[in-house]
Amino acid sequence: MTDAIAHAVSEARLWERLMAMARIGTIDEVGVNRACCTGEDIAARRLLRSWAEALGLAVSVDAIGNLWLRYEGSDPAALPVLTGSHMDSQPRGGRFDGIYGVLAGLEAIEAMAKAGVRPRRAVELVAWTNEEGGRFAPGCMGSMCHAGVKVPADFAEVRDAEGTRFGDALRDLLEAERDLPRRPLGTKHHAYLESHIEQGPRLEAEGLEIGVVTGIQGVRWFNVTLSGDTAHAGAAPMAGRRDTVQAAMRGIAALNELMADSTDILRFTVGRIVVSPNTPNSVPNRTMFTIDFRHPDLATLRDRGDRILDTVRKVAHPCEVSVEETLTIEPVAFDPVVVKAVERAAAADGRSTLTMPSGAFHDAQFLVPVTPTGMLFIPCRKGISHNPAEYAEPGACANGARVLARALAELAA
Amino acid sequence: MTDAIAHAVSEARLWERLMAMARIGTIDEVGVNRACCTGEDIAARRLLRSWAEALGLAVSVDAIGNLWLRYEGSDPAALPVLTGSHMDSQPRGGRFDGIYGVLAGLEAIEAMAKAGVRPRRAVELVAWTNEEGGRFAPGCMGSMCHAGVKVPADFAEVRDAEGTRFGDALRDLLEAERDLPRRPLGTKHHAYLESHIEQGPRLEAEGLEIGVVTGIQGVRWFNVTLSGDTAHAGAAPMAGRRDTVQAAMRGIAALNELMADSTDILRFTVGRIVVSPNTPNSVPNRTMFTIDFRHPDLATLRDRGDRILDTVRKVAHPCEVSVEETLTIEPVAFDPVVVKAVERAAAADGRSTLTMPSGAFHDAQFLVPVTPTGMLFIPCRKGISHNPAEYAEPGACANGARVLARALAELAA
Repeated sequence: MTDAIAHAVSEARLWERLMAMARIGTIDEVGVNRACCTGEDIAARRLLRSWAEALGLAVSVDAIGNLWLRYEGSDPAALPVLTGSHMDSQPRGGRFDGIYGVLAGLEAIEAMAKAGVRPRRAVELVAWTNEEGGRFAPGCMGSMCHAGVKVPADFAEVRDAEGTRFGDALRDLLEAERDLPRRPLGTKHHAYLESHIEQGPRLEAEGLEIGVVTGIQGVRWFNVTLSGDTAHAGAAPMAGRRDTVQAAMRGIAALNELMADSTDILRFTVGRIVVSPNTPNSVPNRTMFTIDFRHPDLATLRDRGDRILDTVRKVAHPCEVSVEETLTIEPVAFDPVVVKAVERAAAADGRSTLTMPSGAFHDAQFLVPVTPTGMLFIPCRKGISHNPAEYAEPGACANGARVLARALAELAA
Repeated sequence: MTDAIAHAVSEARLWERLMAMARIGTIDEVGVNRACCTGEDIAARRLLRSWAEALGLAVSVDAIGNLWLRYEGSDPAALPVLTGSHMDSQPRGGRFDGIYGVLAGLEAIEAMAKAGVRPRRAVELVAWTNEEGGRFAPGCMGSMCHAGVKVPADFAEVRDAEGTRFGDALRDLLEAERDLPRRPLGTKHHAYLESHIEQGPRLEAEGLEIGVVTGIQGVRWFNVTLSGDTAHAGAAPMAGRRDTVQAAMRGIAALNELMADSTDILRFTVGRIVVSPNTPNSVPNRTMFTIDFRHPDLATLRDRGDRILDTVRKVAHPCEVSVEETLTIEPVAFDPVVVKAVERAAAADGRSTLTMPSGAFHDAQFLVPVTPTGMLFIPCRKGISHNPAEYAEPGACANGARVLARALAELAA
């Protein structure tokens, strides 16, 4: 039965739909800018609906704007199996992040329909609202409200760069879809399985086809700020300076040692530096740099993260240092039931696999407390993501859709 | 005779004039924003003129807007002695940078007049146009045109941040002073002596009263750019990254070694860092940092500056590096005749001195090729300059004016 479904997956149809979506909000010929609740977002949702309605799926929307498609099961009372991802993109994003998981889910459902398979459980497909957070921060609003950790009113006053309230933008989006049935937030599911491009280089580098994702590593963000004194770059002797760029440099070198990891599992990134006054001929009196620190192991995340301040303080002299933690997400482990279903589906499809944690956040993170959850990854070129150059091969996209279809069919049986 | 002049210097008058000028373009109560060719600049020039005319000085202006005041000598045909500085300020500047040299010169002339001394040579006072370059870049336009290395037309198309042409702003300034006699550019002088706040901490730290300035150190500016690849901070393993912040950090550490100087004469500053994409969760694919490198010795300036690219390249791997030199000014040595005159004047006035190069640029730099030139410094608090917190004690200001008056009288005798 699942072989028949896998055989009904169409690489050409999936690719054509990916490229059709990429024409909504195109930038730089091969990139996408499709921010949450914009005209592009609404157009992409309308296109998805048109394909779903042609397939006879039931379409509905909830109060945070999550868009739901349902392929009915033979037992409508059984908890449905859920797949999906998001349709919004980064401001300078690519054609696969998020939208791949939505269209692979649609392809899996279409393959079931084409194969004439109606599983016991319904299969639902969701497009979560505002995963990226590029226009309205934070991201993952849709999945957070589904999981009940937030309610839509919590985000109503969030404003974009132009000052538009999220509450108003969401109202306009829902008004554009006023013909859709409303659905309550937080409905229950038997399992959630999200497919996504890896956004990292490992599958490609190791020549493997499917990432079996075991969980999402934890993350801690910090702002490290060095304070000193400004002075004239020509007049101030080196000996008396309190130069914060120099102190930041010593701090980053010391942090590299703190974060050293011969297993290369830990992730440590200084991605943002803000210097003041930031002129060539002034000794900088203030330098802030960010730390993005991730690890799948909570103890490591706590231990090394808690030592950041002391590590920098030891080398900051004669500057002062302060550290602010700006984001804390504990690692999550996916449910073995879903992880095993992905493993079996990949094996049945003859795909090579890598068992791995996810380096990036995903909506799946917020599903873990409420639903048995898992993810699968497909390779993407050089690991590039959040960039117009993001690319996944048509064959890789189809591989993922086949494994997804097999796993959903098993979970829904 | 010079004792009589020195005794006629009035600390109170000089201070009152400094504070009167500080009320034109005041920011943050104790700071000044008086950009070239603005209404504030024109008002400050008018105030200077009013004091000069009350003293009976001849006032004129040249084609680049340099404002000239002349205290006639007993031999009007002899080459005059020149003092002065500039009246424009940095956008967030203080009450002493530049304007002190103009008002100390006026005080020296007033003291000569009050003491009834008319030296053989005329004493001229100049307020150079646009030394700071904060509104119209580059700075030192007035002294460059005086020295003949540029002509006013070279700067006509320079625009400020609002798009105003310098040529138009200068025309409006000259129109506002249409009642003033015009004077040819590039008239000759017997000597030029500029007084200025130190803009560094050495005089204050060593408890000394007068800096005898021997020259201006040379400077080379560089932009160092590291190129790598962006990647997801959570997904990309550390081992394969081409992280340009990390490469820049290694580069700065290596440059610190290249620029090490146990004599603490060399100045090496990384004052500006620009990271791209500069988001916490992206490995940065481009990092640019500036180098401001200064030294009084041309050979050192050439040798170490020329080794910057190789030094960074050795540690930049796996990133690429490029280095662009954006400014090159060779060191200049002041004329022993003027330096010795300052030394003798300070000794005659009973002032403690420090013989030192200037760390900052000054208009005096451009006078060196055309006129025997020197400078004297007075202490300023903590070396702070280009900042509203810039401060010099009234007594220190008067000390400088007395030494200036004595030196000008000797040079003009």
